[in-house]
Amino acid sequence: MGNADYECPHRVAIPPSKPFLKSLKSGLKETFFPDDPFRQFKNQPASRKFLLGLQHFVPILEWAPRYTFEFFKSDLISGITIASLAVPQGISYASLANLPPIIGLYSSFVPPLVYAMMGSSRDLAVALTATFFAGVFQAALGFLRLGFIVDFLSHATIVGFMAGAATVVCLQQLKGILGLVRFTHATDLVSVMRSVFSQTHQWRWESGVLGCCFLFFLLLTRYFSKKKPAFFWINAMAPLTSVILGSVLVYFTNAEKHGVQVIGHLKRGLNPPSVSELALGFGSPYLTTAIKTGVITGVIALAEGIAVGRSFAMFKNYHIDGNKEMIAIGMMNIAGSCTSCYLTTGPFSRTAVNFNAGCKSAVSNIVMATAVMLTLLFLTPLFHYTPLVVLSSIIISAMLGLIDYEAALHLWKLDKFDFIVCMSAYAGVVFGSVEIGLVVAVAISLLRVLLSVARPRTFVLGNIPKSVIYRSIDQYPVANNVPGMLILQIDSSIYFANASYLRERISRWIYEEEDRVKVSGETSLHYVILDMSNVGSIDTSGISMLEEVKKTTDRRGLKLVLANPRSEVIKKLDKSKFVENIGPEWMYLTVGEAVATCNFMLHTCKSSSNPGPEYNSQDNIV
Amino acid sequence: MGNADYECPHRVAIPPSKPFLKSLKSGLKETFFPDDPFRQFKNQPASRKFLLGLQHFVPILEWAPRYTFEFFKSDLISGITIASLAVPQGISYASLANLPPIIGLYSSFVPPLVYAMMGSSRDLAVALTATFFAGVFQAALGFLRLGFIVDFLSHATIVGFMAGAATVVCLQQLKGILGLVRFTHATDLVSVMRSVFSQTHQWRWESGVLGCCFLFFLLLTRYFSKKKPAFFWINAMAPLTSVILGSVLVYFTNAEKHGVQVIGHLKRGLNPPSVSELALGFGSPYLTTAIKTGVITGVIALAEGIAVGRSFAMFKNYHIDGNKEMIAIGMMNIAGSCTSCYLTTGPFSRTAVNFNAGCKSAVSNIVMATAVMLTLLFLTPLFHYTPLVVLSSIIISAMLGLIDYEAALHLWKLDKFDFIVCMSAYAGVVFGSVEIGLVVAVAISLLRVLLSVARPRTFVLGNIPKSVIYRSIDQYPVANNVPGMLILQIDSSIYFANASYLRERISRWIYEEEDRVKVSGETSLHYVILDMSNVGSIDTSGISMLEEVKKTTDRRGLKLVLANPRSEVIKKLDKSKFVENIGPEWMYLTVGEAVATCNFMLHTCKSSSNPGPEYNSQDNIV
Repeated sequence: MGNADYECPHRVAIPPSKPFLKSLKSGLKETFFPDDPFRQFKNQPASRKFLLGLQHFVPILEWAPRYTFEFFKSDLISGITIASLAVPQGISYASLANLPPIIGLYSSFVPPLVYAMMGSSRDLAVALTATFFAGVFQAALGFLRLGFIVDFLSHATIVGFMAGAATVVCLQQLKGILGLVRFTHATDLVSVMRSVFSQTHQWRWESGVLGCCFLFFLLLTRYFSKKKPAFFWINAMAPLTSVILGSVLVYFTNAEKHGVQVIGHLKRGLNPPSVSELALGFGSPYLTTAIKTGVITGVIALAEGIAVGRSFAMFKNYHIDGNKEMIAIGMMNIAGSCTSCYLTTGPFSRTAVNFNAGCKSAVSNIVMATAVMLTLLFLTPLFHYTPLVVLSSIIISAMLGLIDYEAALHLWKLDKFDFIVCMSAYAGVVFGSVEIGLVVAVAISLLRVLLSVARPRTFVLGNIPKSVIYRSIDQYPVANNVPGMLILQIDSSIYFANASYLRERISRWIYEEEDRVKVSGETSLHYVILDMSNVGSIDTSGISMLEEVKKTTDRRGLKLVLANPRSEVIKKLDKSKFVENIGPEWMYLTVGEAVATCNFMLHTCKSSSNPGPEYNSQDNIV
Repeated sequence: MGNADYECPHRVAIPPSKPFLKSLKSGLKETFFPDDPFRQFKNQPASRKFLLGLQHFVPILEWAPRYTFEFFKSDLISGITIASLAVPQGISYASLANLPPIIGLYSSFVPPLVYAMMGSSRDLAVALTATFFAGVFQAALGFLRLGFIVDFLSHATIVGFMAGAATVVCLQQLKGILGLVRFTHATDLVSVMRSVFSQTHQWRWESGVLGCCFLFFLLLTRYFSKKKPAFFWINAMAPLTSVILGSVLVYFTNAEKHGVQVIGHLKRGLNPPSVSELALGFGSPYLTTAIKTGVITGVIALAEGIAVGRSFAMFKNYHIDGNKEMIAIGMMNIAGSCTSCYLTTGPFSRTAVNFNAGCKSAVSNIVMATAVMLTLLFLTPLFHYTPLVVLSSIIISAMLGLIDYEAALHLWKLDKFDFIVCMSAYAGVVFGSVEIGLVVAVAISLLRVLLSVARPRTFVLGNIPKSVIYRSIDQYPVANNVPGMLILQIDSSIYFANASYLRERISRWIYEEEDRVKVSGETSLHYVILDMSNVGSIDTSGISMLEEVKKTTDRRGLKLVLANPRSEVIKKLDKSKFVENIGPEWMYLTVGEAVATCNFMLHTCKSSSNPGPEYNSQDNIV
């Protein structure tokens, strides 16, 4: 046989195999440092390196030299705007987790929301311990450069999870809105509904009317701000306005004596050190709960924080280093847990307001912190008459904003599977618990990944008329089968997880093609061309699979031909002697060249030793 | 701009999107019925369908009509050969699991081996319950067509696991060989060694010498049979010979009075029903252990049985239906647990002997079962004087055959990662326990899959001289960069798990290319061509990623071009308006055509509105 009288235009290159340690090193680098964090240090003199390193750890050195008065004006305005949103929200969220309201002034909404649902002990020490562990966990992830773990929480999972958590929190607010005193500690829909409707005689209409009015007001301002983005501050100021209006109303109508509960006494002063509470938390029987809560809230807060950070980074064309971000958030939480703060992240609503308010740098955060501090020091007595129902309205209004039904619709339109993941996370949280929702969503997402690995697709390729291009017949109906050949494209790396599936699938393609040819009376099958363009790598199970395919085709009198085997694959096939086995002359750089050679063989060597239809099936009865 | 004066040769097809239910159905079919089990029923008359269905469930109908006397002769010989191997092995394995020796006559070696190491209670009822659950679990997997779960135990895992288990069992046999009475119940290397060397004064030299002699004899016959496959029966007969020799020796030398322990009394008769013991097992406090043991042994037995079945099926060109096989094995175990048998599978050594002995059909199994039955009924008293040390030698000899160091070397040579998986499984079993070994190996294997999904490779393509072929510059050093263009190949589907990595990696390629061009003074970068040939599918996170890449390139004044987007991808890109966004004229069927058009644009429209180097970086200080 051979191909002496036919010139094959290109040869498949077999690159020399790299030493193990070298390829391990480059693999590790790509896995843990994909963003090349030290790029700016390359080819720099030592003094410059030192400066850059200092800037890396103390970012203020990076932007301070370029800071102007114009920037400061923008930062001042945005800082105050944020503070006016943060103070009432902080108090509301703390009351949500049944913690002293003052604790909430430094917090965002995600962690208390999760904590409210998970912590079986509504205890300050446990909350602080959970924060501590969340911080440790987050910082550890960052230090170990395992930021990519967060990527496994897909956007769809987060949308469903957040909507579910928001629904649960809204349901919890029925307590405040209806002025109920007793309420279930369970968080699932069924228990809450049973609790609400089992005590209809306890509902307070004064509280309900007040709550609905404020809720309407808040939603209206939100709607208005959405229509006209220039008036974003109306939305940002609405919670503070509600708190003031509500407090004034209660003060003048003595409503606290008619079933409208108020906050009452708030301790004045800055947040005290809380190491003693933390120590208490370590000794408490709720330590495992605290650790679990910490790890879960930590991951979710990270996933949300980083996703939000990224979307704003994209707008402004700066770069976010996920791992660095994690270390920062983690450190913040460890420090926070020692100073009476609980879990913090960059919550979306505030970041969005900050963005709209035109913040220019971290100075806006300093302004905000100062404003909050002043409130803590001097203004806390003003919150004495703030009705709880207003806080409930603020929470519900914020939570409704988290139910991103548009994103869910978008998922349904684009990708049904993502929609299913999203809905499972939602249903898991609403009908079960936070953990159930999270586990279900991550499990389904991973299952999808594993299924796509275990069941890669294979396509029959055909010739696009008047070209040497070969494409899937499914996608390009104009493509024609090549007589006497079956061209198969394997759409994934070949692993232990899919090797036996692929073996079966390839056999099935072969006998289906043989059946088809027999019925239609076309040229009988002589060549099976495997297009390996998409096979990025192969393991030992994959090599055995190819060896078995070779045996199968040999037994059926067919010739196996490989097209475009890639670097990693060809190295291993060469080492395992498969290249020798198949014959290096049966590997081509493109499908087109493989087909051309096969056609040549088919027409010139028809009567010679070329593999013919000496196929006989059942030679065994077992 | 547009491409009015340049004729693009081929258009990317956007196939109509299939209805959701239809694509779901085909997806499910491909996942659960990849082997098309009902193929032979297609296009057949009803009577033929009925016959085929009957044959499917009662395989004897398939081969009986073609059975001849020649076949029977082969089956008879192979059946007797197998029985002579099975009887001593069965007794040995049962003694290994501390069960009545008679129980072992129907069993294979894998399950008692695992059971010996896991069962904390050496109790018949628990063993039977474990068998029952293994059967239920196996049959359930088969019925649910989840056979592919077994694929996730890679060949490397099984090699390491079996070698580890064999090592542990060999260590346990030190008890028999050294004639020890007390022995540790732990299975890890450290505990066993401590137990053996803490009682050196108890070692019995008579027992040791006898054991070593028989071991030497068994290994010698194995070596001989391996050299000359025609004498396979020497190896098959060796255990029986050893048992007879050993018994005769003990009988005439009264060695049982000199520290050589013997089997003693064996109950005669067929295996009795054991439903009462099974009921006992269900009530026992070891029920969870039994369930755990059952599930683990079930999976391993299946993985081994199916792998072995497949390798022989390949030799003989028949087809194994993994799911059908599972149902059969599972049913066998459920039935076995009710009749005093424990876990059964198709053990490799016996299948291999069967194959070498020339078995033709299931009749050889019937012959073997008859031979074993006759032994049970009439020959059990003959085993009274069989020394335990001979059984230990038989076990060690069989176990040494399971340590497939050649396979491990092969793994090391071909794929370092597979070797690491194999060694972890081995070390986990030897130094920890069965569960630890299994969990570690499967976790590492899955981690590898997930890592390869989370960190797909990207390549820069270059032009192979004198062709329109574009290939990775890494693999083909002759390939040349195209001036003004960066051609990137993405090597995997784009998912939530890798979307943010890919975004970062693509940005990095772009700025690295810009840096390179700046230094070398070549044509500045104008086009980024993404070769999507290997992107089989995309989810909503992936679409967002592409949208962000588009924004990044726009901001840098670069044009984004797609080459060969595939069916699934183009459908979703079309639905999400990304095609509109990028402009359908910027999608090409091949990289070659994309490059040709870009080259045309680059040289004819240089001074017009073509994207030029109006790139300005830092427009923000954040």
